[in-house]
Amino acid sequence: MDIHSADWIDEVAFSGDGLIPAIAQDHKSKRVLMVAWMNREALLESVNTGYAVYWSRSRQSLWKKGEVSGYTQRIHEIQLDCDSDLLILNVEQTGNIACHTGRNSCFFRKLTPDGWQEFEPVLQDPRELYKNG
Amino acid sequence: MDIHSADWIDEVAFSGDGLIPAIAQDHKSKRVLMVAWMNREALLESVNTGYAVYWSRSRQSLWKKGEVSGYTQRIHEIQLDCDSDLLILNVEQTGNIACHTGRNSCFFRKLTPDGWQEFEPVLQDPRELYKNG
Repeated sequence: MDIHSADWIDEVAFSGDGLIPAIAQDHKSKRVLMVAWMNREALLESVNTGYAVYWSRSRQSLWKKGEVSGYTQRIHEIQLDCDSDLLILNVEQTGNIACHTGRNSCFFRKLTPDGWQEFEPVLQDPRELYKNG
Repeated sequence: MDIHSADWIDEVAFSGDGLIPAIAQDHKSKRVLMVAWMNREALLESVNTGYAVYWSRSRQSLWKKGEVSGYTQRIHEIQLDCDSDLLILNVEQTGNIACHTGRNSCFFRKLTPDGWQEFEPVLQDPRELYKNG
């Protein structure tokens, strides 16, 4: 996206460690797919390329979603909350798989009288997801 | 909800400070309304009463959503993510107002070529929301 306003990034309230949580939501089904972190560079890269780029806290590096699995997220819209410290990305999820378990969403368990129960199928064997990684 | 399983709460990965983020989503429109924190007690209270109870970090106390404004959240479903460290609450939002600004959702700004722009109306004057608080 080409943004004329120069100060939009300064309105984002990154936390003390320079990060902000981003909720990725399917732009059609509205399903919440996953939550990950962005730093300033990841957000700028996401806006500039139109694809979700996160900050991996474990690897301490930029992480283009799908760079290994191929399951990228094309961004349709970015929303900011009232405190400016949370983002929503409305995305088109390639392959319909956002979770590293091979499911559509990371939220695949719900609370029932018998405890947490899975309600969502594995679409692809997770060993296949990262075979090139 | 009456849960027979005793150990469901122990499967939830509260962080070092005993908290977990909870994303409240409208159970019908699927709109993400807000994100707040829960501790163990808040989650148990939410499950037992069927209404969202959060942990206020600023007040360091349990906070029943809507206790002042009247805009409570009736819980339809609770979901847990693959890392067990994030919750989604699918809720029925009383009055359709979840945000302290008097809007349906806290996510009322989106990124445009001219920067962040509000796209959602204020349904009630925020001064009216907390007049009894």
